[in-house]
Amino acid sequence: MENKIKVAIVGYGNIGRYAVDTVQSAPDMELVGIVRRKESLHNQQPNELSGIKVVSSISELPGVQVALLCTPTRSVPEFAKEILAAGINTVDSYDIHNQLADLRLELDQIAKAHKSVAVVSAGWDPGTDSIIRCMFKFMAPQGITYTNFGPGMSMGHSVAVNAIAGVEKALSLTIPIGTGMHRRMVYVQLKPGADFAEVEKAIKNDPYFIKDETHVQQVEDVRQLTDMGHGVVIEHKGSSGNAHNQRMQFTMSINNPALTAQIMTAAARASLKQPPGAYTLIQIPIIDFMYGNPDDIIRSLV
Amino acid sequence: MENKIKVAIVGYGNIGRYAVDTVQSAPDMELVGIVRRKESLHNQQPNELSGIKVVSSISELPGVQVALLCTPTRSVPEFAKEILAAGINTVDSYDIHNQLADLRLELDQIAKAHKSVAVVSAGWDPGTDSIIRCMFKFMAPQGITYTNFGPGMSMGHSVAVNAIAGVEKALSLTIPIGTGMHRRMVYVQLKPGADFAEVEKAIKNDPYFIKDETHVQQVEDVRQLTDMGHGVVIEHKGSSGNAHNQRMQFTMSINNPALTAQIMTAAARASLKQPPGAYTLIQIPIIDFMYGNPDDIIRSLV
Repeated sequence: MENKIKVAIVGYGNIGRYAVDTVQSAPDMELVGIVRRKESLHNQQPNELSGIKVVSSISELPGVQVALLCTPTRSVPEFAKEILAAGINTVDSYDIHNQLADLRLELDQIAKAHKSVAVVSAGWDPGTDSIIRCMFKFMAPQGITYTNFGPGMSMGHSVAVNAIAGVEKALSLTIPIGTGMHRRMVYVQLKPGADFAEVEKAIKNDPYFIKDETHVQQVEDVRQLTDMGHGVVIEHKGSSGNAHNQRMQFTMSINNPALTAQIMTAAARASLKQPPGAYTLIQIPIIDFMYGNPDDIIRSLV
Repeated sequence: MENKIKVAIVGYGNIGRYAVDTVQSAPDMELVGIVRRKESLHNQQPNELSGIKVVSSISELPGVQVALLCTPTRSVPEFAKEILAAGINTVDSYDIHNQLADLRLELDQIAKAHKSVAVVSAGWDPGTDSIIRCMFKFMAPQGITYTNFGPGMSMGHSVAVNAIAGVEKALSLTIPIGTGMHRRMVYVQLKPGADFAEVEKAIKNDPYFIKDETHVQQVEDVRQLTDMGHGVVIEHKGSSGNAHNQRMQFTMSINNPALTAQIMTAAARASLKQPPGAYTLIQIPIIDFMYGNPDDIIRSLV
């Protein structure tokens, strides 16, 4: 096939690793290469990257149409601006909920000026979960929607615990307890000489934890407890006109970075079908994310 | 508010009745009137329609922007063509799965020629369920999706039983038994002198029933058993790249015609944001179905 979509992966952490799989599994895509930090290029590349071009700048990869930004979320704005300005589409899974609307507006201007497309927050939450919440809202407009996360690791909460004095390494698990409330199960590996009781108190008073039921346990080796599984339950009870008690629920149990990489891959495809600008997932027709002939998709899935 | 969307309801059966509620509940819409068959205009209109203009042709309603086609599904193509040709958008919940792709292509030409928009099959299945099936497919492309309907009345199956000799009135309930298989619970009220054993045999051999586990019971009065509740469970197990066992499920328990009317109402709003042509729900961005300022929606729900 001549016209495969030329994709680059920027960043090779959890999500980047899975993105190699998801891009290579897509029948309509070609992985042009991976962009890593200069420092990491001095080392031997991992075995699974043999045969894949690894560079330190996207400009070294010819003909890239879409870049999957698999960097830490805070670096996304910087990379997106630079790559969009080079006329290359970007897809990210930016996950800071209260800043994504502003990021989109900012990238929208840059993308329009350089005839490129950004798909912003193309993960599962924000992302596909947002689509579900919006659908529930237009299907039964009056009512309440709860998003219950877990069980699974919260990156943000784990990082917050890592920053507390005396903590060598930490893991914070999010456990759903219904109606959008969550229990925090925190596992800490202490630095030599640290006092567990003090660490526990500091965690429970941290702004990330102070409002939630939080349990802290000391363990020998946090890495032994870490898996990439996650989940969500989104529940809505509302009314359609005067018909009450319309109940809807969406549930997933998933490998977190793999699903994120897969959604970003679908969004890369969709990016090529939008006019220049920046989009969240709810601004793009569902069919644009899918592989295949549109009329065949309508015939088989609608 | 000056610029409310002017909506007409065409047909006043199960869905049309609920559409009066859902259109009147939408803050951005105005119900201009209801189009009914000429014959029904000779009768006294039901109380709930007092104050609402009821006419026999949409041409008697000035300024209509969108018509919700709440007629029997088989009449949808005829009404849609006529109304689209008058430059008025249409929304239907056409539910014949294997014909909707062709209907869309046909209406697409008429809509483009007359600068109008058709939203085709804007119910829950086909409709919002189709969106969910497509999402599951792009989130975990390899794998199987099962759609399990019920418990709830199947209109098509009930009509098929009504056509069998000796049947006065019938109700066929769809019961989900997993992996997309369904049990049919059929309740029949017989005509005087009809033989139950013969009716039962005829039902079980009918093409609508022959492949399914079917149970037939004789009852005195079918109407006593009829409610408008329905439901669905859509389940998907698949892989994202090489990550297997990605599990997703969508469940609803709903008032069937009320949900259909609500989705059609949302689609009426969306129709005004599309270029001329005919669309299924998967071809329209989710945000277009929603009431409110797009940037506010992105800030609150994404």
